Amino acid sequence: MQQAHTEPGPSAWDGVEPEAARRLLSAGVEAFAERGYHATTTRDIAGRAGMSPAALYIHFKTKEELLFRISKVGHERARGIIAGAAGSDGTPRERLDRAVRDFSRWHAERHTTARVVQYELQALGEEHYAEIVTLRRDIDSLLRGIIEDGVRAGDFAVDDIPGTALAVLSLCVDVARWFSAAGSRTPDELGLLYADLVGRMVTAPGRA
Amino acid sequence: MQQAHTEPGPSAWDGVEPEAARRLLSAGVEAFAERGYHATTTRDIAGRAGMSPAALYIHFKTKEELLFRISKVGHERARGIIAGAAGSDGTPRERLDRAVRDFSRWHAERHTTARVVQYELQALGEEHYAEIVTLRRDIDSLLRGIIEDGVRAGDFAVDDIPGTALAVLSLCVDVARWFSAAGSRTPDELGLLYADLVGRMVTAPGRA
Repeated sequence: MQQAHTEPGPSAWDGVEPEAARRLLSAGVEAFAERGYHATTTRDIAGRAGMSPAALYIHFKTKEELLFRISKVGHERARGIIAGAAGSDGTPRERLDRAVRDFSRWHAERHTTARVVQYELQALGEEHYAEIVTLRRDIDSLLRGIIEDGVRAGDFAVDDIPGTALAVLSLCVDVARWFSAAGSRTPDELGLLYADLVGRMVTAPGRA
Repeated sequence: MQQAHTEPGPSAWDGVEPEAARRLLSAGVEAFAERGYHATTTRDIAGRAGMSPAALYIHFKTKEELLFRISKVGHERARGIIAGAAGSDGTPRERLDRAVRDFSRWHAERHTTARVVQYELQALGEEHYAEIVTLRRDIDSLLRGIIEDGVRAGDFAVDDIPGTALAVLSLCVDVARWFSAAGSRTPDELGLLYADLVGRMVTAPGRA
C-alpha cells in the first residue's frame, strides 16, 4: 500500500537556499517516507529532484547530511511554534491552548516531513544526533515552562509536570503517524480538539 | 546512532508455532527496526535467526508475509488488551483506566515490535492491509464503546467521542516511539500516569 505523500500549502523548506537544496530536501523526504532511509540511495534522491548525483554532492556531502538537514529544519520549525506560543501574551491557559493548536496542526499539515524527522533519528551520526537532542530538549523545556507558569498561577492542577509535558508533545507528534488529508478532520479542527483535550489534562477533575 | 532493541519479559511470539517461526518473527522485528522493511532482505532475517534462506521460505513465502504475520500477531495482542478491559467488571471509569494502563504499558514493554507494526503498515500488500485495518477498527470501536458507556452513565463528559477515542489510542501507541528502558519511568509508572491523564480528558473541567 503506497500512500500519497504530497503535502499542502507552501514549501516546508522556505528559507533554505539555494533552490536546488530545497528541491533535494523535498525529494529526500519523499524518498525516505516511501522506502525508509537505509533503502534510499543518493541517486534515488537526485533523480527525484531532476538532478545528477554529482549535483547532489555539491549541496550535501552524504545521505546522512541530507537527513540531518531535514531533521534540523523540521526541529527548528517545531521549536519556533512552541516558542511562539510560550512567548505570546495571555494567560498560561491561552498560551498552552495556542501551543497545542499550532503544534498539532503543523504535524497534520506536515505529516510526511514529521514522520521522517521522528522515525529516522537513529540513522543520524553521533554529533548530528546530539545537536537534534538539544533542539528536542528546548521544545520540551518551553512546553514545560508554560505548564509550570499555570501551576504557579493556580490555573492548572498538575501532579507530574514533566510527565504531562511529555504526554502533550507525544499526543501532538503522533498526529504525523495517522493523519491523512483524506480523513474526516482538517488540521484546524484537529488543533481545536487537541487544545480542548489538553486543557482538560491540566485541570483537576472537579475544578474549574 | 543504533539503539538496543532487546525487549524484556517473555517472548512476544508465545503461541506462534513452530519455534523456528517464532525465531524468524523475532529476527524480522529486529532487522526491520534497525534498517527498515525495504532495506532488509530475507537473507538478513534468516541469518539473524541462525537459519538458511531456504529454511525461512518453509515458514514464510515472502518478506511481506513475514511482516504481515508480525503485524497480525501485534494487532491481535493489542485488540486482546483493549477487549480484556472493555469486557471486565467495573464502572466505565475503571474499565477505561484499565484499558489505558494496560495498552500504554504494553507499548512501552514491546516498543520495538510496536514500532515495526505501526511504521511499516504501508509496506503490506492490499489484502493483508485490509485485514489489519479490520483489527484496527475493532480496537478503536472497543475503546469508543467504553467511552460511550461512561457518557451514557453520566460518568464522563465528552464532546467528541470518536475524536477522544482516537486521541487516547494515539497517546498510548506513541509510547512505542519514544520509550526507552533506560528512561526515568518504568512501563508500570507510565501506565498509571497515562490512566490519570486520560481520566481527566473524559471529565469536564469543573465536574467531579
